[in-house]
Amino acid sequence: MNMNIPNIDLPRVVVVGCGFAGLKLIQKIDSRQYQTVLLDKNNYHTFQPLMYQVATSGLEPDSIVYPIRKVFKGKRNFHFRMAEVQSVDTAGKTLHTDIGELEYDYLVLATGAVTNFFGIENIERHGYTMKSLVESLDLRSIILQNFEKALNTSDLKQRQKYMNFVIVGAGATGLELAGTLAELKRYILPKDYPDLDIRQMQIHLIEASDRVLPGMSANASDKSYKFLKKLGINIWLNTFVKDYDGCTAITSNGEFETATLVWTAGVIGAPIGNMDSNLNRANRIITDDFNAVLGVEDVFAVGDVAAIESEGEGRGHPMLASVAGQQGKQLGSNLNAIARGKDMQPFVYNDRGTMATIGRNRAVVDLPFYKFSGVLAWFTWMFLHLMLLVGFRNRLVVFVNWCWSYLKYDQGLRLIVRKVKKQSPVESQ
Amino acid sequence: MNMNIPNIDLPRVVVVGCGFAGLKLIQKIDSRQYQTVLLDKNNYHTFQPLMYQVATSGLEPDSIVYPIRKVFKGKRNFHFRMAEVQSVDTAGKTLHTDIGELEYDYLVLATGAVTNFFGIENIERHGYTMKSLVESLDLRSIILQNFEKALNTSDLKQRQKYMNFVIVGAGATGLELAGTLAELKRYILPKDYPDLDIRQMQIHLIEASDRVLPGMSANASDKSYKFLKKLGINIWLNTFVKDYDGCTAITSNGEFETATLVWTAGVIGAPIGNMDSNLNRANRIITDDFNAVLGVEDVFAVGDVAAIESEGEGRGHPMLASVAGQQGKQLGSNLNAIARGKDMQPFVYNDRGTMATIGRNRAVVDLPFYKFSGVLAWFTWMFLHLMLLVGFRNRLVVFVNWCWSYLKYDQGLRLIVRKVKKQSPVESQ
Repeated sequence: MNMNIPNIDLPRVVVVGCGFAGLKLIQKIDSRQYQTVLLDKNNYHTFQPLMYQVATSGLEPDSIVYPIRKVFKGKRNFHFRMAEVQSVDTAGKTLHTDIGELEYDYLVLATGAVTNFFGIENIERHGYTMKSLVESLDLRSIILQNFEKALNTSDLKQRQKYMNFVIVGAGATGLELAGTLAELKRYILPKDYPDLDIRQMQIHLIEASDRVLPGMSANASDKSYKFLKKLGINIWLNTFVKDYDGCTAITSNGEFETATLVWTAGVIGAPIGNMDSNLNRANRIITDDFNAVLGVEDVFAVGDVAAIESEGEGRGHPMLASVAGQQGKQLGSNLNAIARGKDMQPFVYNDRGTMATIGRNRAVVDLPFYKFSGVLAWFTWMFLHLMLLVGFRNRLVVFVNWCWSYLKYDQGLRLIVRKVKKQSPVESQ
Repeated sequence: MNMNIPNIDLPRVVVVGCGFAGLKLIQKIDSRQYQTVLLDKNNYHTFQPLMYQVATSGLEPDSIVYPIRKVFKGKRNFHFRMAEVQSVDTAGKTLHTDIGELEYDYLVLATGAVTNFFGIENIERHGYTMKSLVESLDLRSIILQNFEKALNTSDLKQRQKYMNFVIVGAGATGLELAGTLAELKRYILPKDYPDLDIRQMQIHLIEASDRVLPGMSANASDKSYKFLKKLGINIWLNTFVKDYDGCTAITSNGEFETATLVWTAGVIGAPIGNMDSNLNRANRIITDDFNAVLGVEDVFAVGDVAAIESEGEGRGHPMLASVAGQQGKQLGSNLNAIARGKDMQPFVYNDRGTMATIGRNRAVVDLPFYKFSGVLAWFTWMFLHLMLLVGFRNRLVVFVNWCWSYLKYDQGLRLIVRKVKKQSPVESQ
């Protein structure tokens, strides 16, 4: 069965995935030159950098995601379909999806990344992640449910497990989550749970390398280490997590009793199932400097799922929103160039800097020629993240929420909407 | 196993359910006289009158619900536990719940109401409801998923089923839902789905009695009938739905082909499982004028689940938020009176009026001595509903959202977050 898309007299570009790369590409593409079909398994674009605030009751999902149909409202020769791609036939230039088949002239894979559990199945089974909106909402419910459960038990050892949180991976996501949990502990939970001794709550941040924020400058690592310490977070460097059964995390540095292990320790590319040729070690599709996939015709890959062969000794660019956005935009221009019979331009990454935040008034910013931290960095972080959100309404709602939390020391949204049931052996002990 | 609640030297009032009745009661109760324990299966209070806006992408859940722990922050001798009550032993004055047993001195049942399917199992299986937050979120996803599915089929008959909506019950909820769907059809969907002919979308409102809004004045019925007609809604009065298989609704007035039937045709009381003595025909617990349950000691019932025997020929007061709130408040005063050795006062309902809205600029308001409709009624409706919301942040966020929708003719939140799978035979045909 063919997908229900009109056949018109223009070459068809099919884009899979509407993260930053897919979004910027389609905004750039010339709709007089191409028919564009976008496929995504969700009907919304997600602003991943703020996902941790959904998990910690700071923001509602609606303010960090944006309906895809609304983004491209009025774009000519554009069709969005909510679909999951199952496989691709590059010889026949056809995609197979759960809602039918679709032929393409050019295919762009912008399928992003998924969590890398490094093959440890128990962590995948018992741990929590924040890679999608649904996962973040699940984590929010779990954090709140744990405190309800801690109240209901008089077994002090079991109660402690509910009040211990282990975060694995001290990248930006891990730090931001740890910082927000520490502020929940300080400002919110003692008021919500007067029956519990919230001082017992422990936050452990576990990192395999020898510093926090290993992707940023030494200065950022030092500063954020101090910020984390001030917030009372226990930091374990040079520590590997080996196993987790839902109760006890076994690490190279001893055991941690916890009902909640959050895994932010790594991601790998998420290519389409049968495209397993030309992948690098991180499961990313290897491309040339124009993001064209090596070895197949008229297929491109952009963003986290792509690794440009000439970059980083074959590892590709860092998996960042800014890289994805720039690659999408560049490929859009290149496709327009093809249609006009012009030359494509190779992708060159313009590194405008990276940043991370660790609780109120604390952030670190690495610009190419200047590094700073503290209150000014924090306001910079907030301002830039507001501006990067898609849609004025989202910016307004997030701004109102942030002002509210800042002035009132309060996260408004402590609602257990999804009752998550993962196999948790803590209860049955 | 006993629930983990401290035993102190005060009589213990256990309240089951934190709707308007439970909320107002606990706010009133004197914490120097009583230890109060509140049980609810959710950790939030829900503002039910705005649920339909969650279902139609107008508001996010966070703005119409409020965390229970936050409502009662700082109240002394108060304990909240998230729990489901399984049964009650009135002789032993003990509640059995999923987190343990709890003894009470006074028990207050404020468990509200559930949807009444009048025994038609097929409607319960295939139809949608809006009685809880989760149901409303499910309905939102279903409405949006239907349009995605309509796009994916080239079978015109099947497409039509996805674009037909049948709402059963023309009370305030049914009217508000129908009105909002009609506005989605007019302002939003044509922009989101340029590939679909949205004019084909049909909204049917089915009502068993001979007028819409049968609970309000004849004037309100007439006006709202005209408003609904103007919005292009098909109204079927004196019509009963007999069966629905997920594709076809069979009524006393012919058949309707639809993938989405929303049931707002009635509610019944939701008493605790084993308390089936002293129930009236609508499953409500029969009480005396002081909301004391007949035939048992020290048990009270308030709100939708209660029916005061002397009222409405045994039917009790209408199942409205205002009745519930007033009963809760009165019972709180009466419990305080008992503790001080004073007399209880019988409950007298102060009817301040009812209202309903049907899309932008259109509402009907029945005050005890004055009835009006149109733009002024609409602003009255909005103002009162804003004021009734718990929490300033909620009011602010709802206000921003309403202004936004009003000025931009746009509902922001068209996100399919929950992928709902009900047995829908439409696809397999």
